[in-house]
This record gives sequence, structure tokens and C-alpha cells, in this order.
Amino acid sequence: METLSVFLDVPLDTDTGVPLDVYRADPSPQKVCLGHAGCLTDHVDEVWIPPVVQRILLQIPQDPTLDHEYLPELGISGFTRAAVKLIIGKDSRALLQNRAGGIHTVGGPGALWLAAEFLHRWYKPTESAPATIYIAVPQLDDIGCIFEVAGFTDIRSYHYWDQIKLVVDTERFLEEMQNAPEGAIVFLHAPEEMGLGPQDWEKVAAVMKKRRLFPLFEIATQGLVSGNLDKDAWAVRYFVDNDFELLCAQSFSKIFGLYDERVGNLTVVTKDNETLIRIQSQIAKLIAMSWFCPTSLGGRVIAMVLTCPALRHEWIQSLQALVKRIMLIREKLKEKLRILGTPGSWEHLTAQSGVFSFIGLLPSEVEFLAKQKHIYLFPNGQINICSINSKNLDYVTQSIHEAVMATTLQDRQSVENTEKICPRFHQQDLPSESSSNN
Amino acid sequence: METLSVFLDVPLDTDTGVPLDVYRADPSPQKVCLGHAGCLTDHVDEVWIPPVVQRILLQIPQDPTLDHEYLPELGISGFTRAAVKLIIGKDSRALLQNRAGGIHTVGGPGALWLAAEFLHRWYKPTESAPATIYIAVPQLDDIGCIFEVAGFTDIRSYHYWDQIKLVVDTERFLEEMQNAPEGAIVFLHAPEEMGLGPQDWEKVAAVMKKRRLFPLFEIATQGLVSGNLDKDAWAVRYFVDNDFELLCAQSFSKIFGLYDERVGNLTVVTKDNETLIRIQSQIAKLIAMSWFCPTSLGGRVIAMVLTCPALRHEWIQSLQALVKRIMLIREKLKEKLRILGTPGSWEHLTAQSGVFSFIGLLPSEVEFLAKQKHIYLFPNGQINICSINSKNLDYVTQSIHEAVMATTLQDRQSVENTEKICPRFHQQDLPSESSSNN
Repeated sequence: METLSVFLDVPLDTDTGVPLDVYRADPSPQKVCLGHAGCLTDHVDEVWIPPVVQRILLQIPQDPTLDHEYLPELGISGFTRAAVKLIIGKDSRALLQNRAGGIHTVGGPGALWLAAEFLHRWYKPTESAPATIYIAVPQLDDIGCIFEVAGFTDIRSYHYWDQIKLVVDTERFLEEMQNAPEGAIVFLHAPEEMGLGPQDWEKVAAVMKKRRLFPLFEIATQGLVSGNLDKDAWAVRYFVDNDFELLCAQSFSKIFGLYDERVGNLTVVTKDNETLIRIQSQIAKLIAMSWFCPTSLGGRVIAMVLTCPALRHEWIQSLQALVKRIMLIREKLKEKLRILGTPGSWEHLTAQSGVFSFIGLLPSEVEFLAKQKHIYLFPNGQINICSINSKNLDYVTQSIHEAVMATTLQDRQSVENTEKICPRFHQQDLPSESSSNN
Repeated sequence: METLSVFLDVPLDTDTGVPLDVYRADPSPQKVCLGHAGCLTDHVDEVWIPPVVQRILLQIPQDPTLDHEYLPELGISGFTRAAVKLIIGKDSRALLQNRAGGIHTVGGPGALWLAAEFLHRWYKPTESAPATIYIAVPQLDDIGCIFEVAGFTDIRSYHYWDQIKLVVDTERFLEEMQNAPEGAIVFLHAPEEMGLGPQDWEKVAAVMKKRRLFPLFEIATQGLVSGNLDKDAWAVRYFVDNDFELLCAQSFSKIFGLYDERVGNLTVVTKDNETLIRIQSQIAKLIAMSWFCPTSLGGRVIAMVLTCPALRHEWIQSLQALVKRIMLIREKLKEKLRILGTPGSWEHLTAQSGVFSFIGLLPSEVEFLAKQKHIYLFPNGQINICSINSKNLDYVTQSIHEAVMATTLQDRQSVENTEKICPRFHQQDLPSESSSNN
């Protein structure tokens, strides 16, 4: 070939953010992945799936009334109706007034991507400046680039978590919202997991209403935090009930165990039905130009579960059993670290709930675990609680203990000046409550 | 609610481009849709699906080795390998040299969308000007807007079809390529259906090489035009064998009858393996920010069919039976119009092959069919040959006859001055060969 490639300048994107890939490539028999994206059973690497979902997956291909024709751009209407009801509640005034609707998307990320593209095109709170978006510090990198690619130029971070006291810092959150430019978008990732209580959310909503801020929610583990679907949707419903217009990107991967079938929904709540239809028509146009229409299998399964009371009941029971297991792992992990005498407070493991947890290790400790122990966490130090099972619990706690013991004082001091979320070592400076409570 | 919607200025997108929607809403028992996007059987509205695909759809949920974990961003490697081999040939030098690879996408449109986004970011043929893209007239609207949204500012049309003589106009095509800015991208939709022969493609490739033009293919009916998978891929393979770097967006919806499972592949052919990996890494980044990973069911089915000789053989036989049916419908349609004495030449119906056909009606005739006869075509006058079956053939031909008879001379003259693709009435000015041939 005589010529050079026209793509000579394309750089290699070396994204090392996927611990599962590193884990899979590691030949060590000791290896443990604590960075699975989804929920697992107590068996190593076995992805959790509710039995009811497995049953329906066997039934669907045998149903002669279903074909494989293209879906409409907005997807399966039975699915989107059920998804909207799930998040805002079946008796929501917004639903009764026909001003809340859904868009069936290719996974939760697909819903968020559409939201970013739509908002960039059509959300113009002021004529003078482009819209601002606020993203909480832990999501700033991953989510920020979606908005950057969509065309947002004013992307800012906010804080809702006190890294020293290990509690939500509602005051700082409120202050930052208070100082936000009027009409800014606030990205609220996993409201069910943020740790804000109803009173906190009421205050946040009041400031956001006053400053005319636009809420963009993302929810991926509804039901998996408290075991109660309604409770985990409380914040979103409070905003809807208080007449906010909002978008909410929902993912169904984790709560239905269907990661590879890519099922998401973008819930749109607006002022009236006519505005809803206009918004949906513009988003349909974006869909026609990208994935054309969503995929059907996952949406069919989920619509069946959500709309049939018996199947729904069975699914909720499966969710609750998983939530119970997650809490048990959190307790065992904390207890074992206490018995080993691992320095630091591990109270946050049980004070929080849900699938994911900032375990509270320093970057050097995360590196120690990977290099010395073949244990792989998310790069930000987060772990998936479900990745711990009865077979690896002892090895994981012993390894965490060794990692912490190997940490030098210098490591600990240097991290106190950073923005890193490493709660345990900040916590050390405070009177520890963990040992007395346990 | 005290305030107005922040989305007051969002316009309603009234896309009336989907004849199937209008058809479905029509209560008339006479109604016929000639604008299905996919292939149908001889039964009204029954979507064609190869029996082998139906069998595998029943088997997959029973396979205990398969779970529903997230796929990698680039999808199922067994699927992409098979897809690349399908289009460029299993013995392609590019494959042996590890410089051809695939990306598993959400349908064919997803592959094209990724191609547009990637090329906008990384294809810089000259430093002074943004890249130009050429799109053939019939696709200019639909495809043009994908590239516009991706950020292309220089979008131009080209012609390869002589509307008067009803043949490919290779000379005009070559002349337009000759005058294209160096390094321009040429979008080649459905090379299997364009009607260019090997000698035409050789000339086109020679000019494109000379002007360093970049080929971006889109192929959705490989095997459904000639009944031969290799023959329908001839043009793409010729470019690969002649050391072009190229992208090819493949859709599997029509050839596997799996529209709703959204299976596409973006084949990348470049100069060396290292460049391929760099390109794939950048596209993986785009995927991580949009649909995160592709869906698995369709990819699994197709990989199984393509890689197992017995299943592949059965699938090809199904494809060939469909191709035979399409040719038979084309012949019957032409013959019935001849018997009715419908003015104009209908020779193009059998001179062309494949699923779709420009039937050659004026916009007023298309409107007549919709309003008077409840028969719905694509807005550009194209029909899906598969939409015609033994039950509606007589009604469709009789209606076309009436539509043509109702056309005034004025209608015919006015259209001769437009760019519309209405071959029949231009053809009338030429000596008609159809009646003598039939």
C-alpha cells in the first residue's frame, strides 16, 4: 500500500476504568472483582436475575402473537407507561393530567444521552447565556463528558457530601444551588442512594424552585436501596408533586438482571399534554437519527412484570431478598474488619445502603489490593457490595486489613488535602463511634 | 401551576414519513401498505423471518451458559468477526492482515450514526477546510441530517441515476466525483441495489482513488438483491481489495427478519492493525457515552447462523426463496399493468432487483392512491415489493392504473422540470420497449 492511513492522528483511548476487564485477564486463582457493574448472587461471578424474569424469557419466544417488526421510535407504549408509573407513582397528578410520559431507550445511559442532546437543543433558560449544568463531584468526569459532547460549555460541580463527617452536607448543597445561575440544570444521580432524607429534599426543592433550577434525575436501583419501590422514588415524586418540570433517566438493568438487553426509559414531566407531545416528537427525531428504535425483548419482559400484579409481587420479593443480602454483607464486612482491628471507622458500610459503596480506601491501598492481592475495585475506590460472597469474604477483609496496615502516615496526610472521597481516614480524626456501637 | 413551561418554544416535529403509521390508523378494510420497512411473507402484514432464526430464538433462553451481563462496548466479538467476513469475504487480505474489524451496533442506523460522529471528530483530509460529504439525491434528506447533527457543514448531493433513460449514469457520477474536493467522503447507500456493474465500480474506484475520496458504505440487504451474498458484496470487496480505507455500516434486520432486536455492525478497514485498534478505541468511547453497549439477543442469533455451516446453508436457502418471490411479484406487477394497458413503461420493475423499487408515480398519483384507494407508499414514491401479495396484487395494479389514468397532462409536464424521481413519465418520451418485450 502506497499511502499512509488518513487516520494517522487518531489517538488510542486507553480507558482503564473497567475493573472486570482487568480481573478477567488475571490468571490468579485468588482474584476477586469488587467492581462488577451489576448485581451478583452468592456464587462467584453469577449474575443475579429474578426467577420471574427468567421464566418470561422462556415464554416470550413461544408467543405466536409477537413478531420482530420495528418498534415505534418511542418504543413499547405499555412499557413506557409502566416505567413512568413506577417512578412517579400510579396516582400522580401529572399522570392523570396526561403531562407525564416516557421514551423507551437503549438502557439508562441511552436515556441520559437523549436528555443531554435534547436539553442542549431546546432548553434555553436565558437568552443571553448557554445553559449551565451542575453535576455532583463523583459523577463529574463520566457524566460531564456526555454533556460536553452534547454541546454544553458551562459544566460545574456541586457537593452534597461531607467527606470529613461522612454525612450529607445539605447546607453546602443548598448554598451552591442558591448561587447557581437562574435556570441551571441540576443532575441528580441516584437520589435513592444519595442519603438525603425527605426534609433535606424539601429544602433542596425549595431553593431549586426559587432559582428556577431544572432537575434531571438518573435512577438505576429503584427498590434496591430500601427494598421499597415507593420509598426509593420519594425525591423524584416530591419534585413532580411540587409542579417541577423534569426529566428522569431510568435504568432497568440492575433491578431486572437484564444488563445486555439495554432497557431504559426517559420520563418527561412537563406542564401540559401538548408540551409533552412536542418534547416527545423532538426526541423521536433524535432517535430516528441514531438507533432508529429501541430493542424489544427487555421492554416486553419488564412491561409484563410491572403490569401483572402476581408477577410484580414475585419480582418485588426477589428484590427484597437481594436487599437483605446486601445489608448482611455490609454488616459482615464491617464486623470482620472490627475483629481484625483494622484502623479506621467502618461505620459508613452499614450507615449507607444500596449496591454500591465508597469503601474508603486510599488510592495507594486500592493499588495494593490490585497488585498484591488480585482484588479489583472501581478506580474511584467504590465497590459493588454484591461482588462479596461467602467464598471471598474472608480473603477480601484480610486483604483490606493488610492494605490499610501497609499505608504510611505520609499517604494518609497527603490525601487529606485532596478532593478524593476517602471517608475512612478523614473519619479517623473524629471521635470514632463505630467500636462503641458494635 | 403558576409558571409557563420552560419548553414553550419546542416545536412539534410532524414527521409524516412513515406510511405504516397512516396505514395502521386507517379503518378501511381495503387498505394496503406498500411502505413496510421490512420484508413480508405472502400473508398480509406478516413479517418474514427465516425458520432457522425462529428456532434459535427458542433455543437461546434455554442455554445455561448464557447470562445477561453487560456486553463489552464493541459487542460480541464472534458476531463482529462473522459480520466483517460476511461483507469483505473470509479470505480478504485485510482480514488476514488484521486491519479489518467490526463494531457491534444498535442496528444499521446506529452504525451509520457512529460513523458520522467518528468521521466528524477524526477525519481531517485537509487542514484548511472541514470535510465534505457527498450523498446521493434519494438519501440526501434522511442521511444528510445525521451528518449535519454530527457537525458536518459541507454536505453535497451527487447523481448516479439517469431519470430519463432509467439507467445508471456512470458518466455523471464519475464527473461529480472528479470535481469533488480532495479527500471528500462519499456515502454509498446500498451498493448492492444501485445498479452499477463491476466495470462501473472499477471506474468509480479509480476516480475516488485519484481524488483520495473516502468511501462510506451502507448495506442492508446483502443477499436479498441477487440471492448471492458474495455478489451483493462485490463493490465493497473491490474497494477493500484495492487498498481503500473505508467504513461500512451493515444492517441485519431485513436479512434475518429481526427488526426489533437492532443488530448492526460497523466494519472498519484501515491500513494496519494498530490504526484499527485506535479507531475502535475512539468509537468505543462514543458508545460508552450513548448506549453503553449493544444488545445481545440478535447478535447471538446471527453469530450462530453465520458461523455454523449447516445453519448458514439453511439461512441462505431461505434468503434465496425470498429473492425468488420478489422477482415473481415484480414480474406479475409489470404483466398486470401491461394487460390493463396502463400508460407508460413498467420495464424498470423487472430490470431492477431487490426489495425496494421506485414505482415511478407522480406525487399527485401517490396522493390519489392514499386518498382514493387507501394505498400507502413511501413519500418519495418508493414501494416495498414484499408488501404486495397474492391477496392485494389485483387491487394494487387496478388502483395504480386508475391513478395514472386520472393524471392530467399538466401534472406530467410540471414534473418533467423537477428533480423528482418519476422515471415512468420521462420514459414515455422515449420509444417504449416494454410492450414488445412482454
